[in-house]
Amino acid sequence: MTDTNDATARAREILSGYRASIDNIDAALIHMLAERFRCTKAVGVLKAEHGLPPADPAREQAQIERLRRLAKDAQLDPDFAEKFLSFIVKEVIRHHEMIAAASAANDQESATAGA
Amino acid sequence: MTDTNDATARAREILSGYRASIDNIDAALIHMLAERFRCTKAVGVLKAEHGLPPADPAREQAQIERLRRLAKDAQLDPDFAEKFLSFIVKEVIRHHEMIAAASAANDQESATAGA
Repeated sequence: MTDTNDATARAREILSGYRASIDNIDAALIHMLAERFRCTKAVGVLKAEHGLPPADPAREQAQIERLRRLAKDAQLDPDFAEKFLSFIVKEVIRHHEMIAAASAANDQESATAGA
Repeated sequence: MTDTNDATARAREILSGYRASIDNIDAALIHMLAERFRCTKAVGVLKAEHGLPPADPAREQAQIERLRRLAKDAQLDPDFAEKFLSFIVKEVIRHHEMIAAASAANDQESATAGA
């Protein structure tokens, strides 16, 4: 019984170590995501200002292929990596729509001010 | 006309810089995710081996609150951070189910071998 209790106590200790690693990794992920969205928001503004096309299918395909390759090398399921990218891209599109809406509202305001 | 072309060419150059940053960040994200799943897989094995409960609602609530706080500090939408965690946790549960199924199959094999 004491052996089992010791083993369980040791397991809880190991678990607590893994959780400390998971918490550190999560903090890194959140900050990386924040920085990624800073970049994609800047891209949204740049594209809107210069009339560049919002979507770029060739770039998107290259990103999918690259992430699948990186995932495979890192022993991460490539299908999960692709799902992850599409999860992120959905949020990027939401931001770009907000940028476009804000820009349209500004144009509307300028047009009214000029009338 | 040349001014517009110059401005567009300059915009494309800036875009290309942002894309280089996004690609670097994506590689970091993929490797962080791979490491996170290495930890959660080890947690799954440890819990299965020691009969520890698979879910821990208090830990999960603390993780959500911490990630929302980190996101806020990093100017990332806290709702997105929470959605991100639940996206990851779905994959963790899938891995743990696979570990449990493999462990049950092993037990079955041992039982048959012992019969």
